[in-house]
Amino acid sequence: MQPMRGVRLATTAAGIRYRDRPDLLLAAFATGTRVAGVFTRNRCPGAPVDWCRAALAGGTARGLVVNAGNANVFTGQAGIAATSATAACASTLLGCLPSEVFLASTGVIGEVLPHEKITSALPDLHAALDEDGWGPAARAIMTTDTFPKGGVRTATLGGTTVRIQGVAKGSGMIAPDMATMLCFVATDAALPAALLQTLLADGVARSFNRTTVDSDSSTSDTVLLFATGAAGNTPVETAPALAEFAAALDAVLLELALLVVRDGEGASKLIQIDVRGAVSDESGRKVALSVANSPLVKTAIGGEDANWGRIVMAVGKSGEPADRDLLSVAIGGTWMARQGSVVPGYDEAPVVAHVKGREVEITIDLGLGDGASTAWTCDLTHGYIDINGSYRS
Amino acid sequence: MQPMRGVRLATTAAGIRYRDRPDLLLAAFATGTRVAGVFTRNRCPGAPVDWCRAALAGGTARGLVVNAGNANVFTGQAGIAATSATAACASTLLGCLPSEVFLASTGVIGEVLPHEKITSALPDLHAALDEDGWGPAARAIMTTDTFPKGGVRTATLGGTTVRIQGVAKGSGMIAPDMATMLCFVATDAALPAALLQTLLADGVARSFNRTTVDSDSSTSDTVLLFATGAAGNTPVETAPALAEFAAALDAVLLELALLVVRDGEGASKLIQIDVRGAVSDESGRKVALSVANSPLVKTAIGGEDANWGRIVMAVGKSGEPADRDLLSVAIGGTWMARQGSVVPGYDEAPVVAHVKGREVEITIDLGLGDGASTAWTCDLTHGYIDINGSYRS
Repeated sequence: MQPMRGVRLATTAAGIRYRDRPDLLLAAFATGTRVAGVFTRNRCPGAPVDWCRAALAGGTARGLVVNAGNANVFTGQAGIAATSATAACASTLLGCLPSEVFLASTGVIGEVLPHEKITSALPDLHAALDEDGWGPAARAIMTTDTFPKGGVRTATLGGTTVRIQGVAKGSGMIAPDMATMLCFVATDAALPAALLQTLLADGVARSFNRTTVDSDSSTSDTVLLFATGAAGNTPVETAPALAEFAAALDAVLLELALLVVRDGEGASKLIQIDVRGAVSDESGRKVALSVANSPLVKTAIGGEDANWGRIVMAVGKSGEPADRDLLSVAIGGTWMARQGSVVPGYDEAPVVAHVKGREVEITIDLGLGDGASTAWTCDLTHGYIDINGSYRS
Repeated sequence: MQPMRGVRLATTAAGIRYRDRPDLLLAAFATGTRVAGVFTRNRCPGAPVDWCRAALAGGTARGLVVNAGNANVFTGQAGIAATSATAACASTLLGCLPSEVFLASTGVIGEVLPHEKITSALPDLHAALDEDGWGPAARAIMTTDTFPKGGVRTATLGGTTVRIQGVAKGSGMIAPDMATMLCFVATDAALPAALLQTLLADGVARSFNRTTVDSDSSTSDTVLLFATGAAGNTPVETAPALAEFAAALDAVLLELALLVVRDGEGASKLIQIDVRGAVSDESGRKVALSVANSPLVKTAIGGEDANWGRIVMAVGKSGEPADRDLLSVAIGGTWMARQGSVVPGYDEAPVVAHVKGREVEITIDLGLGDGASTAWTCDLTHGYIDINGSYRS
């Protein structure tokens, strides 16, 4: 990934949990950077999520500290102390308020974060800050991820070309809301914090919150969007003038969200579920996520079995309006079931070939109305069991 | 299992899907038998479920036909024709109305049920009906089950000792509501149909609807309760006089529900989740089921990892009232997390020993109120993937 004006990054191996690999990221933002954030709705959030929610009230950001290997979740007063100490140390180095420093931690839950390993590493990280640090940043925030995740788009905003780029991590404990553990996006556009927040919330609703790996929602999920203003565009506030920027932001968020799903723990296939004919878009969203979260659908696709009966089951269990006798199901564009029964003599060959691929498309027509939605998930395989049956050991 | 007055059974290998194993059950009930039923809430139910719902209006039962290997779900007009033809054939043999014959089918979805294999087998089955057929009946209804499931209790009702006994099947696509694929219970008690229905609905709410294997709810789930009246007890309608019978019925239903969970696809452990301190019993039930349905909790227990952090996550994702800083978690009676943080220096040895056992107990105290509930699930293992990645092939 290329450098971005107004953003400098540095990483190091602080030895928080992993040995001999980078696990700590410091990012510094230009003066005047605005920030927006969306966080997990889990009722037991981690201390860094509490910290970010409070810090977001100021609307400005100068720093970001992220560690991998320890989530600083369910750590009581020690967890709160770790966030305060980390932010205080970074703010001193960056010459800003502690509330302008944002924090994120992922990894094991319930172990006290050894924050002195972070604060002792920050001075060297500060000295090493570099605009060319995006690639290492994407790697330093990984936990069970098997590859680093980044996305870039450009857009014209107020007559100026601006860039939007971000990194994400996460591959398990992934579900709406939010469907990632961590995602950090920066833009050199100049935009006020309130507008950024609206754009981010809308974009997350159409991307991360349409994806699921295992229906489990993390206690640490965080998406932050930083706007440095370094591009120097003229102020823009009307919807038409923002449209291209909003579309580019949505594209970056969706690209990152799908990278997370592709890297779902043990995943071998990306599954897209398109629902149409629902009574409303919201109803379609619930049906799509019911299918996306069904272990039986996910194991069938993992086994390369075009088992559309399980798709029917998962539609029905959503509780949303559905009429069995109007329901149609296609896999890879081949309609296998139409209006309540199997399509007689449908050609299974293209379906069998399709489910052997790396990307599987399921289309569900409820036949009731004009509502539509899309969700993404991955297959459920032995790899998920391997990873999660022995994560702590 | 012993014979029961007023109930005769017979089984055979009809070759519907499986080869060389019994897959068809006919049961006949004495004249005057009353019936109650509870069915799946899946919006895409199978044709036999539709049939039973309609037949239940009459309140009386004389026959039951159950096949394994084909669910007769999503089979359109052919599925409806299969139920009519099967009930018509059985009613002729039994000398009753078609609406006094109850039907259940489980197995593959979306393939037309070859009902002529059933109707051609029914005359021989009718000739073979025998009070001593409960054991073979429990085996004939199995699909992916690894063992047959039965339960028996006695109670005093109206001055007479009555018996309640049942069989169940199911080990995947199991979740509230309903947490079994099929369960058939008979009693020789004399009780009116409306009262039976209330007793059954209450008992199912406390048993099957508190269990989950994979969060997927079947399109075929059926629990039927038949009361032959052969015990000849005096009429009973008041709650105190019914209490012992109701308790015995609840015990049979819970025993069968837990047998289904123990036989969960790929399961190696039965997991009981007790929630207390919730704002209400209903809230406690939702928290317990959120933990019971969490793939990360289930894989951790499968890996014999006492990963209480995932339990905290699953409590939080339920969306129910929970305060991280009041929350406590115990495994096998050892409190590992209390009021928002890990218990310093807790003894992990008994916990490690406990999770290596066949039965694992998780206790969650939300610290908010007096609400309590219990749910049961099994661990998630490689076996589940093996079974469901290649079920049709």
